[in-house]
Amino acid sequence: MGLDLFAGSSADRNARRAVWHDRSVISIPASPARAFASDNSAGAHPAVIAAISNVNEGHLLAYGQDEVTASCEARFRDLFGSDVVTRLTFNGTGSNLTALATMLGSLPGPNHAVVCTSWAHIHSDETGAPERLLGTKLIGLRSSDAKIAPDQLAELAHLQGVQHHVQPGVVSITQATELGTLYSSDEVAALCEQAHRMGLLVHLDGARIANATAALGGTREALRSFTIDAGVDVVSFGGTKNGLLGAEAVVFLNPAAAVGSEYVRKQVTQLPSKMRYLAAQFNAVLDDDLWIDLAMHANSMAGELHRRTKDIDGVELGAAPVVNSLFPILPPAAIEPLRQWCFFWDWDVSRHQVRWMTAWDTTLDDVAAFADGVRHVVADAIET
Amino acid sequence: MGLDLFAGSSADRNARRAVWHDRSVISIPASPARAFASDNSAGAHPAVIAAISNVNEGHLLAYGQDEVTASCEARFRDLFGSDVVTRLTFNGTGSNLTALATMLGSLPGPNHAVVCTSWAHIHSDETGAPERLLGTKLIGLRSSDAKIAPDQLAELAHLQGVQHHVQPGVVSITQATELGTLYSSDEVAALCEQAHRMGLLVHLDGARIANATAALGGTREALRSFTIDAGVDVVSFGGTKNGLLGAEAVVFLNPAAAVGSEYVRKQVTQLPSKMRYLAAQFNAVLDDDLWIDLAMHANSMAGELHRRTKDIDGVELGAAPVVNSLFPILPPAAIEPLRQWCFFWDWDVSRHQVRWMTAWDTTLDDVAAFADGVRHVVADAIET
Amino acid sequence: MGLDLFAGSSADRNARRAVWHDRSVISIPASPARAFASDNSAGAHPAVIAAISNVNEGHLLAYGQDEVTASCEARFRDLFGSDVVTRLTFNGTGSNLTALATMLGSLPGPNHAVVCTSWAHIHSDETGAPERLLGTKLIGLRSSDAKIAPDQLAELAHLQGVQHHVQPGVVSITQATELGTLYSSDEVAALCEQAHRMGLLVHLDGARIANATAALGGTREALRSFTIDAGVDVVSFGGTKNGLLGAEAVVFLNPAAAVGSEYVRKQVTQLPSKMRYLAAQFNAVLDDDLWIDLAMHANSMAGELHRRTKDIDGVELGAAPVVNSLFPILPPAAIEPLRQWCFFWDWDVSRHQVRWMTAWDTTLDDVAAFADGVRHVVADAIET
Amino acid sequence: MGLDLFAGSSADRNARRAVWHDRSVISIPASPARAFASDNSAGAHPAVIAAISNVNEGHLLAYGQDEVTASCEARFRDLFGSDVVTRLTFNGTGSNLTALATMLGSLPGPNHAVVCTSWAHIHSDETGAPERLLGTKLIGLRSSDAKIAPDQLAELAHLQGVQHHVQPGVVSITQATELGTLYSSDEVAALCEQAHRMGLLVHLDGARIANATAALGGTREALRSFTIDAGVDVVSFGGTKNGLLGAEAVVFLNPAAAVGSEYVRKQVTQLPSKMRYLAAQFNAVLDDDLWIDLAMHANSMAGELHRRTKDIDGVELGAAPVVNSLFPILPPAAIEPLRQWCFFWDWDVSRHQVRWMTAWDTTLDDVAAFADGVRHVVADAIET
Repeated sequence: MGLDLFAGSSADRNARRAVWHDRSVISIPASPARAFASDNSAGAHPAVIAAISNVNEGHLLAYGQDEVTASCEARFRDLFGSDVVTRLTFNGTGSNLTALATMLGSLPGPNHAVVCTSWAHIHSDETGAPERLLGTKLIGLRSSDAKIAPDQLAELAHLQGVQHHVQPGVVSITQATELGTLYSSDEVAALCEQAHRMGLLVHLDGARIANATAALGGTREALRSFTIDAGVDVVSFGGTKNGLLGAEAVVFLNPAAAVGSEYVRKQVTQLPSKMRYLAAQFNAVLDDDLWIDLAMHANSMAGELHRRTKDIDGVELGAAPVVNSLFPILPPAAIEPLRQWCFFWDWDVSRHQVRWMTAWDTTLDDVAAFADGVRHVVADAIET
Repeated sequence: MGLDLFAGSSADRNARRAVWHDRSVISIPASPARAFASDNSAGAHPAVIAAISNVNEGHLLAYGQDEVTASCEARFRDLFGSDVVTRLTFNGTGSNLTALATMLGSLPGPNHAVVCTSWAHIHSDETGAPERLLGTKLIGLRSSDAKIAPDQLAELAHLQGVQHHVQPGVVSITQATELGTLYSSDEVAALCEQAHRMGLLVHLDGARIANATAALGGTREALRSFTIDAGVDVVSFGGTKNGLLGAEAVVFLNPAAAVGSEYVRKQVTQLPSKMRYLAAQFNAVLDDDLWIDLAMHANSMAGELHRRTKDIDGVELGAAPVVNSLFPILPPAAIEPLRQWCFFWDWDVSRHQVRWMTAWDTTLDDVAAFADGVRHVVADAIET
Repeated sequence: MGLDLFAGSSADRNARRAVWHDRSVISIPASPARAFASDNSAGAHPAVIAAISNVNEGHLLAYGQDEVTASCEARFRDLFGSDVVTRLTFNGTGSNLTALATMLGSLPGPNHAVVCTSWAHIHSDETGAPERLLGTKLIGLRSSDAKIAPDQLAELAHLQGVQHHVQPGVVSITQATELGTLYSSDEVAALCEQAHRMGLLVHLDGARIANATAALGGTREALRSFTIDAGVDVVSFGGTKNGLLGAEAVVFLNPAAAVGSEYVRKQVTQLPSKMRYLAAQFNAVLDDDLWIDLAMHANSMAGELHRRTKDIDGVELGAAPVVNSLFPILPPAAIEPLRQWCFFWDWDVSRHQVRWMTAWDTTLDDVAAFADGVRHVVADAIET
Repeated sequence: MGLDLFAGSSADRNARRAVWHDRSVISIPASPARAFASDNSAGAHPAVIAAISNVNEGHLLAYGQDEVTASCEARFRDLFGSDVVTRLTFNGTGSNLTALATMLGSLPGPNHAVVCTSWAHIHSDETGAPERLLGTKLIGLRSSDAKIAPDQLAELAHLQGVQHHVQPGVVSITQATELGTLYSSDEVAALCEQAHRMGLLVHLDGARIANATAALGGTREALRSFTIDAGVDVVSFGGTKNGLLGAEAVVFLNPAAAVGSEYVRKQVTQLPSKMRYLAAQFNAVLDDDLWIDLAMHANSMAGELHRRTKDIDGVELGAAPVVNSLFPILPPAAIEPLRQWCFFWDWDVSRHQVRWMTAWDTTLDDVAAFADGVRHVVADAIET
């Protein structure tokens, strides 16, 4: 009530502080080998580990002056079919801030504001890092599906030209969104057109860009359709949630927005020293589009979990997921026993809503075992 | 729709860019000598001008090491009946940021967030200065009356202790609010109690603290009841909107929150060199509580304007004002002719709502003439 | 030893904390009516007070949308003979930061560094406000005369293009300098040429630009010769130290460097509400070039003081001053008695060096009385 | 001339832009398998790669809520024999800024300054990241050996209490220093005592703390003697330069200085998602003190290189190295041929001084081959 910011995370308090609980509280059936907490709870794909090991021999210059990094940059140019500028970074917050700080720095004038939704990770889940490093306001628009409509941008035009108001400079969208929804290519294109008409640049937070790509066709053409072809200026290209052990890439599709990005990356503490190890991870999954396969698998496991739980009495599930997360509403009495048996996070405590998330390594057996457990525990809770 | 931030100002775009229009467009009746645009459109009270002139002779050390400033600080200690720390500043934004930066600096830990309403001047009308200078997020709570309830603060407790979320550090309220409403002393006390229980400090943006004091009793006791007695830690004590030519004061009621305030003031560019001229202005209005008299007058003129216009056909006015602003809804066709005859600002263009504001120097003649004009122009607009 | 930063101020510690001492400690002769502490200890010129009084009547829109401000801006265009953009501000730190933040904001890329000398006011005497508001490094070059030579800039070229180093973006020079020295027009032009060749913009901190103008010819042509004609991009045009009660102006000579300056001014808390009062002050001294006359007088009084004290046994004075400050070395035993009789600040305690400064209102009688006192006290100190 | 900042790096411009040159330009002898460019050009120790692989299986909660991280934190408590707080980070800049931002945040008052030498990595080689993220000044003291003496700190006392000056808050020393020198335990203790007496906290940038530990005894007691026992408050504990593939640790020895460090780490973009992989790296080298063995080896290889090159005609080498770097002066004509044969960086171009650095994996064969090459090429250059 009265609080829009952080709405999405308002229920996480207990969950986020949780420890990894003992999985054997409930005897029957056995809990799955992998829980449904988050895609960043998964390990790295074996090809990624192998790639790190393979580049370990000998000396290479640090800070990106090595051939592994050069080859990674070439792969990204190939991926987008364009002379994009790629800056590897450590994590998602760092990737977003390298992108946003560079974009804002490319705009003449005062510290411009960033427009996003109140669900945006940069707005709600980065501890104020954007405000601290960018020195500017994030304008958090309200949205029921975590997407921004062109009209909402247009409404901000009244701020422009008034010296008492922050001047919007960048609009940042998330694809797939924090709510597991997707922009169509046309929607992104329409938003980019509106933004550019108003003099704003467009950033796409792609922490789960692989899941979006998988959902929108599963091809490089699909990726391009909602990014470079739609007019997006800069992408935070996620890796860690999709089978890497820790690497992200900022891909500047619009070279004009990349000016000074190498300095900005260092200023926001995101310049890796032994960069070969980050590059090698991306190289491993960009080859043969393994990154798309991994995300397709994660998405399909979420679909499978939906199919196997949607008809369970007491479980409220909406439409089938488009990417790799479900947001079921459960009988209150079922939540803790189920979580102790196999961990997951709360989503909206006030509605007894939780989040189940699949990963690149989730197996059909995991899904089957988990669905069995849900059926078992929910039935138990309803009976009681 | 979807935009909470800046809602209050969303309609000002044209108005704020306006130039001071020719007042004689409409022949009858004559426009008032003083318009109803803002209390900061007024000049300074003659006693203020005289005070400046009176301290002009001779040399005095700069930066506050002079007897005029010392005497001003003594007056503030007397005003609050306590050993408060007073830092004079140039303007409201500077006053708020000297206060907030000092308060945040007194809290150990990361850059803490500031909690306010989405109507707050610091949130909507300071061009992102707070984010730039404080390096932190402003959490803008939704509120229909521009006031924060203790429950709204309590709802933020879920952010505390979670490393992914900004940690609230200061709650900033405005008295009188940006919507012309008032907190009672009890309401402020309840909010302070909740804030302190959660480990937050309380800032009161008193750009119109004089109007609030006048409305809540018109005595020093009234002032103390909603500030120091209620538990407020730091006050931005406004002067410029109440008859000064340009001076504000940050008054630290809680000395623990004042640590380092002299350095912070300089860091946010608010250390006046020839401080005697700011001190003299405050001295002039603090003597004999002229500051309260000026605000009572402004408030009463708003009441008078309400009485004289509330029954005019086509003018929608709510309850009588408690301070010095009215927010009438007018027939669309009446707004521009009326504004050209005697200037005022838009408030919410989508509702044809405007703002009329009185000042310390508004006269009964001004009010009478303006009410006549409103009657005249609105009738004309309705007929057409 | 080992400390370059703050060298100039390293001795001020006691002095800056000083209170205004009783002037009558030594009986003979009588102390002057005005001390020699600083030009910001002086009051305002009567024409300035009158101007404030003259614009006090009636309502005018705030934030610079008034005719007094418009007319002030016109005067600055006239002064520089060019379509300059002028932003009025409250004080010197605010003026410098409005200038620097706007200039840095006009450069694409990361947060660029500001190059200055280690004597620069922005470097040593602004409590780290520049680093806080600009979020960047100040590179403080060593200099014996507080001036930067083109070669020193050229040496910084090795930083350019290296991602591990801050990228210089603006060079800030002070005229007259903190040590009372002057750049010739040719020197400024050579520095600007070097800076521009390297892609840097040039800022001139003119807190005492009037004294520099007076010393370099005392005409508007003189002013232009070392500013707009020399290639300077932005000037902090000082007023407060030259007879105003409190007003400064940022004058953007290069319009490309002014983009967004109205927002930046607000972001650094320097947007005055009742701007008419700042504009009126400048209008008063720009008319008939009173500002030059006042500075010429201050300079000449410093020259006179030099003439009357340079031959006193025990007083070490260098060459005659070019502007309004002297930096004598005194017998240690003379300093405190002399200061208590007529206040001045220490400069370099380790060398027993102090600073005497004249102002627009210093009289020949003041100088004569002060010189007598010096002669008296120094003789006494030497004898003892 | 006139430039102290960046003196150490003033010559790197070409070198830092260098590409990894063809090693076969000179026919005889064969270039070594590993160059002498930097310890961050080396790969990771096999035990580190193995450790990463070993923790890869299965799901673990992200952001440090996993048992691998818990066990790493326990190892650091054991290492320092105290209840220290450890925060893992990605890289050195991030480690330093997590430390400094937390320390400054623990001090009440304004943005305090950081005192360091002009050689400090934070001052010269981090692109202004500290100023951007901390919003404060770095006071870069001059030093011929990259060390700070207690007297230099004491000289800063004159800044304290003066509102016009930044207030020193933290002193940051580097061990081993950027010049390859070392503080003795007594020197650190004396500096800490002086700092604490003045109210400052002490940070130790230990990017090469392993090399320092190895040089000062090669035991955990040695480590403690110049850190926790000497009074250091917070350490940046380096890993990447000593055989890790990429992990650093901020170790808060003084728990009072650790308040809020988990939020600060996230605010400066240094919170790793899959933290198990960073923890595993440290676990691998903390076990059996492999980290000390690796550094002892690197140090000894530098000693060996010194022994084998110090008597070569034309090579000027000072005393034997205490850690793992040499700074020889070479005949100008020898530098480029030698570099093309086996890469290394320039140090001070004006003096023809270069840097040779050994790593954990440098072999005696590498040293022997490199020394042969030096002898060969230098002789050739001198003849010509």
